[in-house]
Amino acid sequence: MGLRFCEPAAAAYAYPLILRHVLRSAVTLAPQQQIVYRDRRFSYSELAARVDQLALALARLGVGPGSMVAVMDWDSHRYLEAFLAIPMMGAVLMTVNVRLSADQVGHTLRHSGAEVLVLNSEFAAAAAALLPSLSSLQHIIWISDEGAAPPSSLAVAGEYEALLALESGAYPWKDFDEQAQAVQFYTTGTTGLPKAVGFSHRQILLKVLVTYGAWAAQAPGQSFRQGDVYMPITPMFHVQAWAFPYVALLLGVKHIYPGKYDPPTLLRLVKEEGVTFSHCVPTLLDIMLHAPESRDVDLAGWKVCVGGAGLSPGLAKAALTRGIDVFAGYGLSETYAGTLLTGFGGDYGLLPEDAQLDLRCKAGRALPLVEVRVVDERMRDVPHDGRSAGELVVRTPWALQGYLGMPDDSKQLWRDGYLHTQDLATIDPGGYVTIVDRLKDVIKSGGEWISSLELESLLSRHPEVAEAAVIAVADERWGERPVALVVARLPSSADLPDRLRTYLSALADEGHISRYAIPARIDLVTTLPKTSVGKLDKKALRALHS
Amino acid sequence: MGLRFCEPAAAAYAYPLILRHVLRSAVTLAPQQQIVYRDRRFSYSELAARVDQLALALARLGVGPGSMVAVMDWDSHRYLEAFLAIPMMGAVLMTVNVRLSADQVGHTLRHSGAEVLVLNSEFAAAAAALLPSLSSLQHIIWISDEGAAPPSSLAVAGEYEALLALESGAYPWKDFDEQAQAVQFYTTGTTGLPKAVGFSHRQILLKVLVTYGAWAAQAPGQSFRQGDVYMPITPMFHVQAWAFPYVALLLGVKHIYPGKYDPPTLLRLVKEEGVTFSHCVPTLLDIMLHAPESRDVDLAGWKVCVGGAGLSPGLAKAALTRGIDVFAGYGLSETYAGTLLTGFGGDYGLLPEDAQLDLRCKAGRALPLVEVRVVDERMRDVPHDGRSAGELVVRTPWALQGYLGMPDDSKQLWRDGYLHTQDLATIDPGGYVTIVDRLKDVIKSGGEWISSLELESLLSRHPEVAEAAVIAVADERWGERPVALVVARLPSSADLPDRLRTYLSALADEGHISRYAIPARIDLVTTLPKTSVGKLDKKALRALHS
Repeated sequence: MGLRFCEPAAAAYAYPLILRHVLRSAVTLAPQQQIVYRDRRFSYSELAARVDQLALALARLGVGPGSMVAVMDWDSHRYLEAFLAIPMMGAVLMTVNVRLSADQVGHTLRHSGAEVLVLNSEFAAAAAALLPSLSSLQHIIWISDEGAAPPSSLAVAGEYEALLALESGAYPWKDFDEQAQAVQFYTTGTTGLPKAVGFSHRQILLKVLVTYGAWAAQAPGQSFRQGDVYMPITPMFHVQAWAFPYVALLLGVKHIYPGKYDPPTLLRLVKEEGVTFSHCVPTLLDIMLHAPESRDVDLAGWKVCVGGAGLSPGLAKAALTRGIDVFAGYGLSETYAGTLLTGFGGDYGLLPEDAQLDLRCKAGRALPLVEVRVVDERMRDVPHDGRSAGELVVRTPWALQGYLGMPDDSKQLWRDGYLHTQDLATIDPGGYVTIVDRLKDVIKSGGEWISSLELESLLSRHPEVAEAAVIAVADERWGERPVALVVARLPSSADLPDRLRTYLSALADEGHISRYAIPARIDLVTTLPKTSVGKLDKKALRALHS
Repeated sequence: MGLRFCEPAAAAYAYPLILRHVLRSAVTLAPQQQIVYRDRRFSYSELAARVDQLALALARLGVGPGSMVAVMDWDSHRYLEAFLAIPMMGAVLMTVNVRLSADQVGHTLRHSGAEVLVLNSEFAAAAAALLPSLSSLQHIIWISDEGAAPPSSLAVAGEYEALLALESGAYPWKDFDEQAQAVQFYTTGTTGLPKAVGFSHRQILLKVLVTYGAWAAQAPGQSFRQGDVYMPITPMFHVQAWAFPYVALLLGVKHIYPGKYDPPTLLRLVKEEGVTFSHCVPTLLDIMLHAPESRDVDLAGWKVCVGGAGLSPGLAKAALTRGIDVFAGYGLSETYAGTLLTGFGGDYGLLPEDAQLDLRCKAGRALPLVEVRVVDERMRDVPHDGRSAGELVVRTPWALQGYLGMPDDSKQLWRDGYLHTQDLATIDPGGYVTIVDRLKDVIKSGGEWISSLELESLLSRHPEVAEAAVIAVADERWGERPVALVVARLPSSADLPDRLRTYLSALADEGHISRYAIPARIDLVTTLPKTSVGKLDKKALRALHS
């Protein structure tokens, strides 16, 4: 006998998991709630009306199911409107990573075959230069917060607000297959051109529902729920700000969109708008904490979820000292952001301070609907002892189906039936995952593995260290040896490297690291290169310092 | 151009929405959390091991994908194990409504074709009498909390715990189609035999995810999240206790299973186990509040979600007075329980007491993924003015696909593309739905509609009224007229009906009801008949009092 199935009485039963439900729920729950960008404030009801207008305006330009519509903008109410209107039409939203080089932006626009580009005037020069090579592009929608006119080299279909103002009434929304692609963006690997990734309505909606539940259910210092005030500090082009704008809509909370990230502005908004929940990469948190303006802002009650790169205990402590409830999550572009989170249970407050700090910095445990394993090269689970390392592999409904148009890379990503994160990790008896290193960043020295992340984390706890990066350099005897690159917090004395070696040596004496992990070379540098989404650019570091 | 789709690189991507994810998440999140039944306490890890054992034991009896396994038990850890193991195997869990008549139980067991019956000894006599007619039944698994042996008339495959004890190791769980049927139960309509309804893994899991998020996101007095202690007071055979046991697992909270509902035991458990979240029908809440034992129990901090029938302001006030945070939700068997909920926003505390009470008693607003309309006979939306009444119709991924084997009833349920609730409702500008009456219970008097629910609600607020029911009786002049049946709170004086008429008359003077709605006949009765799930049995009332 096989599985049983109920027979639907009506086609209407087939209720697809599409993003339109998010907007309807938001407007039902909190029609008067606000969305804030600069001096403009829109209610959720106005958002819904503007989403209709945007869809009607796009339809007038020929956009329909399957069209590719690219957006180049900083975080704004417009981007939120694009998050909704474009996928809701059955079209694909392509979120352009505006921090990439002009060449790379050009590649992503060409590769996507974008037909319409919603363009912020700040990127006009780059777009004008790329224009001759964008053969699919048919229309540009112009945005300028300053009221700037488009350059003569750019023929635009109209200005965003002007195009919306021409439209009224409701767009004829229709249900469609939940497996339809909703969004496309590009992930920058270690080699070659950015890779195209796409996610379906079903994938995003399931991710949003799980995030909604998992964050809302948390203890107060770590929760995101009714009554919070939301401001993204992960760009909306970066995995759609990790899906949180959609979650914020489901929660019916106030949204603050900060435009281009400028630390004084971000801090002012936290204070003036009473922001209680944000998410960002560690670098941005560090910059905000050390911005001169941050001294005047009371940051108590601000919950900040850190991801994209590991949260170091040093940074976590600095944030906690300022009253920020900081904690880490874990995800990749390939997992549509967060898949792991450490929920602080009722016994969290009873833990010693160091253990609390460690917990805040862990990658975390699998969220609902996520299956996590840590495996060796032959897909055997490593012991759950918190020490044995292996590759973190996952399954979840929102895991990337494959890199678009790259079947070989896709098969490699999914070999043995799991999505391979390329992160080296340990898992403890409680299911908590700790990331040891990126597989490609781990340092193989004399047959042993040295974690660059662990060394960076320990160095970051030293009071004189602002930032640290550890890379491998080739070594005749050992194969590879670690080299530490350190940005000093204060105008530095030349002997900081010696003091750091002594500090690491003491940690080795206490058993926190192996003696062979202590870098022979510790260089002081004034800055560390970052990727377009604010992570340490190890590739560039290796090129500069090897 | 049509919709775009991403091409999966691996079959493993096809990650179905099946109930196994709920158990895995629970064990990941809270392996040591407890499940309590009588003097037995199981950890979530033990639950997972027992689910493996139960599945292995059932497999040994021939249960596999598509098998029908019925359960007759009170709320227990065993029922939770059945909620998991049976659907996780691809089999169908049939939850027998043990409050139905023996004839009806027999009909549901026969109709389902149950092959295995998990039987609590309390129902042994009924089962033995039915046995000759249950031609599909192959095995009985015996349960007895008191260690009773099965009667000689029942050949059993073994005792539940003994069968589990024979098994060890892991069941070979497999992924399967998320549309597979997970559960089957029977809904008692106004006429004819109980109707079979079935829900798929996908439907239940989506309902669970939305419930998880929506209740977790609520304000403190109305939330269900980390740190709560859960006890169902809606039977597990009643729409699977409204899905809350699954939600409790996702939250990682403590579960208390109360067995057969006995008010003193329920109250003792609330106190001893520190229960903070329950759900029940209004009748049970009323019984608990008026049980002599309740006087000794501090009920402050107990959140109780009421559904299944309307929450009257009188009952809500009585519960609030005792410190219970009571609030209503709305759902039907056909909507797999809750689809509407009133979330109390930040401004709730600023409302006058009466408005707060009204809000707590409203059916509520659509949950995420639920589309709600209130329509006239021609499917035109009634004005959202909180006064115009129409039928409540819904669409949601967990709406019943159709009554099993009843294509005509199913088409009627789904006519015009929406599931028809047969509830007469109003909807206000804020999207709040109020149930006016069941379509079949509304009283048509002289061309006007009189709501039996509204009259019952007003009567329930009178201090001398314990319970009230209002039904229609035929009337030559007016078509129908309302008759009120009232249970007095105290040994009653014969003139209570007169005082109630005066009371209603005053309410009519103040404009709260129409004068023609005042019942000419108000009868004192000692008890009101209830359905198997504790709702007023209007059908029986009409038969008795018309």
